[in-house]
Amino acid sequence: MKQDYCLADIATFLDAELRGDAGARITGLNTLQNASKGDLAFLANPKYANQLVDCQAEAVILHPAQADNFSGSCLILDNPYLGYAKITAWFSTEPDTAGQIHPSAIVGDDALLGDDVMLGPNVVIESGAKIGAGSVILANSYVGARSVLGENCHIAANVSIYHDVIMGAGVRVHSGSVIGADGFGFAPDGAGGWHKIHQVGGVIVGDNVEIGACTTVDRGALDNTIIGNGVILDNHVQIAHNCVVGDGTAMASYSGMAGSARVGRNCILGGDACVVGHVTVCDGVTLTARTLVTKNITEPGSYSSGSTPLMSTSEWRRNSARIGQLDGLARRLKKLEKQLEDQQ
Amino acid sequence: MKQDYCLADIATFLDAELRGDAGARITGLNTLQNASKGDLAFLANPKYANQLVDCQAEAVILHPAQADNFSGSCLILDNPYLGYAKITAWFSTEPDTAGQIHPSAIVGDDALLGDDVMLGPNVVIESGAKIGAGSVILANSYVGARSVLGENCHIAANVSIYHDVIMGAGVRVHSGSVIGADGFGFAPDGAGGWHKIHQVGGVIVGDNVEIGACTTVDRGALDNTIIGNGVILDNHVQIAHNCVVGDGTAMASYSGMAGSARVGRNCILGGDACVVGHVTVCDGVTLTARTLVTKNITEPGSYSSGSTPLMSTSEWRRNSARIGQLDGLARRLKKLEKQLEDQQ
Amino acid sequence: MKQDYCLADIATFLDAELRGDAGARITGLNTLQNASKGDLAFLANPKYANQLVDCQAEAVILHPAQADNFSGSCLILDNPYLGYAKITAWFSTEPDTAGQIHPSAIVGDDALLGDDVMLGPNVVIESGAKIGAGSVILANSYVGARSVLGENCHIAANVSIYHDVIMGAGVRVHSGSVIGADGFGFAPDGAGGWHKIHQVGGVIVGDNVEIGACTTVDRGALDNTIIGNGVILDNHVQIAHNCVVGDGTAMASYSGMAGSARVGRNCILGGDACVVGHVTVCDGVTLTARTLVTKNITEPGSYSSGSTPLMSTSEWRRNSARIGQLDGLARRLKKLEKQLEDQQ
Repeated sequence: MKQDYCLADIATFLDAELRGDAGARITGLNTLQNASKGDLAFLANPKYANQLVDCQAEAVILHPAQADNFSGSCLILDNPYLGYAKITAWFSTEPDTAGQIHPSAIVGDDALLGDDVMLGPNVVIESGAKIGAGSVILANSYVGARSVLGENCHIAANVSIYHDVIMGAGVRVHSGSVIGADGFGFAPDGAGGWHKIHQVGGVIVGDNVEIGACTTVDRGALDNTIIGNGVILDNHVQIAHNCVVGDGTAMASYSGMAGSARVGRNCILGGDACVVGHVTVCDGVTLTARTLVTKNITEPGSYSSGSTPLMSTSEWRRNSARIGQLDGLARRLKKLEKQLEDQQ
Repeated sequence: MKQDYCLADIATFLDAELRGDAGARITGLNTLQNASKGDLAFLANPKYANQLVDCQAEAVILHPAQADNFSGSCLILDNPYLGYAKITAWFSTEPDTAGQIHPSAIVGDDALLGDDVMLGPNVVIESGAKIGAGSVILANSYVGARSVLGENCHIAANVSIYHDVIMGAGVRVHSGSVIGADGFGFAPDGAGGWHKIHQVGGVIVGDNVEIGACTTVDRGALDNTIIGNGVILDNHVQIAHNCVVGDGTAMASYSGMAGSARVGRNCILGGDACVVGHVTVCDGVTLTARTLVTKNITEPGSYSSGSTPLMSTSEWRRNSARIGQLDGLARRLKKLEKQLEDQQ
Repeated sequence: MKQDYCLADIATFLDAELRGDAGARITGLNTLQNASKGDLAFLANPKYANQLVDCQAEAVILHPAQADNFSGSCLILDNPYLGYAKITAWFSTEPDTAGQIHPSAIVGDDALLGDDVMLGPNVVIESGAKIGAGSVILANSYVGARSVLGENCHIAANVSIYHDVIMGAGVRVHSGSVIGADGFGFAPDGAGGWHKIHQVGGVIVGDNVEIGACTTVDRGALDNTIIGNGVILDNHVQIAHNCVVGDGTAMASYSGMAGSARVGRNCILGGDACVVGHVTVCDGVTLTARTLVTKNITEPGSYSSGSTPLMSTSEWRRNSARIGQLDGLARRLKKLEKQLEDQQ
């Protein structure tokens, strides 16, 4: 657990210019404010540059423009935030789990495990599943029949992966998440009830996807639900059946897509931003928090709806009541305009 | 897994009129667009009728009015979508799980299992629970003390059913869902803290209910929380303590009901539609996505609130800022009206 | 399971004045409306006082001002609701789980279990974890490496607690919840993709915290995520990395906090109320349902945004379309005012 690296090695790994003590020992990462001896910190946002003055870090990753503002050792990079992101892997606190299969893990007879697969206690791998080399599946997680995980996937505890889910390499799924549950498909039975439509499609997840905790990706009704490469999903995200999420798209907590919605590549969905069913959002779209997309978006850009200014509850009550009168207010305004025009 | 059915048998099962090749072999289901030889497709929405022209399906389920528009074999039904729903059961890809009890399953001494119950690996059934004949409980799921599942229930992996939950027959619960957790009941302790109110009620779930993934139904505080027959709940739904959901009601993803709310029969709650505590919604109500119900609804119909038009973020900022001025704008309008009236 | 207490003993426990039959046997709790012989009911809200007339309860907990309105036995308290909350513990239906370690539980070699710890079937405690005396962990739950639970915690089935999570005493976590998953931290890699920022902080949870079902509390990026003492979180709550929740704060279902947000002490977040990243809310703030906090709140009080009046969908469509014209309407109003002013 105790990390202890030489600053020069970090500089080499990050391909950063090193100024200061190349032999300094780095034993942890920290914020500019909280860093102390042994800590490596970073300055990504210039507005915090004033924190460099009193910073006690052993070294700081920073932009060339800031290099003269810190008296200690520096790692100089054009993109300090990306440099920080990269070096976090050296300081991960995740327990080492390499290549053990716990005796309590249950693996279907014809399931295939690649080299150095780690299965935690009580993991269940159903028959016909394939787990790629180097993948880690923690305690009490479930992989359904015929599902395939690529190499170096990391599945946390208590994850549920249904049957016929195909995942690429380097996919991470956090606890409580469910991949491949039935889509919400029912036909009205003509008598006030619902007839279940068995969901015979699957789910395809690309490479290097991260799926947060308590997030759901439903299987397709007939075709597959598809998550592109490099997609990142936060916690409590909902991807309904037959959705398609383009490569590199990020979806924050509570954001969701209803059935057969499509979101393009490199989109960003803010918290609780949702896309209704059968609607398509093109590449390069940002949706601010709480936005509801009810029609196709065909031009890149930032879109919004729904979220309003914050105010005191009494003020809000007064104003929001007027929303219910808005059409009437607009008509009255038009009438006044007409009246004044007629006067002239 | 490989399905292969005779079209005539499908016609008989669906009670459909068959036109064309009664001996055709059907090996899969597909959309009109993607179907090829061996596939059965369906046309439910007449606006896609033009897809019949180039459709490569072996056969299509369609309405009598469309029967002449497809040159291949047809199954003719007044409700093609319901026919499609029914036949999906024949093509389910769910692994066959009939009647095995995995040796790692742990069953309390005085729990009762009906005939042909299937328990997956690491399933835990606490003492006093009863599992109805033909029910299937997949890996790592939990059924608490004295809980009762009817016949032919299907509980996916990693489901948590607390103690004293009573479920009817044919109930399906998807992974990650939690039935019977404590309702959110606390009394202010008079010193800025909260005193827990132990939730001594249970949960009653009717027949043929489907509960999606990561959905929660809390136990009652004193009485029970009640889910009617044929209710369908999508993923991430929240049903708080002492709620009552009427028969045949559908609740889409993120929709929720706060404590003691009641929703009638045959209602449809769109995504994220929520009902606040102690409010009652009558039968036959539709709530559009994002609607917040803050008072009783006593007439059937469609109700809405909250969701606004989608626009560019800059446009939205301009308009939403005005919401905070709305009461003032309305007063100014009224003043103008008065002024003009006085002039005349 | 069958509870049977003497009314006088309950009076002593609650420090209540007893009027009526001190020897009455109390065998259950119920509402005023549904109570019958043997039941103890309570009247907290004076608006239900008329239910006292026909109430069949064996005894009622009520305020001194109501004592003369009930002809049966009474327990008289200044805060009847708190009295009811306290006595619910005597009627809990939770199965007794004292001090057993199921043989299927898997405990890492150097994990420490306090006296009378109960571990259900298939519970996994990773190495270096410490479970405080009297704590209960139900089936299929997971405690990661080096995590610490205080005394008398209660962890329901299928809970996931990652590594390096520190919990106080008396913490309750409901099923499906996830404590310590990675925060949603990624740096743009400059090529349209995302580079994962390994989350090396942990989570600190205070004493007497209750965490509902399917709720997530992410671990910190560098520092810890912190949940104060006596915090109560409902189901489907999201606490992102590096958030701080003050003592005694209550968060209802679907409420959430984005990264590094802070909410003070004794706040109440209504359902779906969310705080955006890096925003601070002071002590003593109430947020009504659906409110989105986009800027710091520095004064105690009740705040709102977003939720609008409920109306028929057709009426809503007319009114909400006007929201998209609001800036234009406001400008037109201003122009009219100018015109009229110029006339005079």
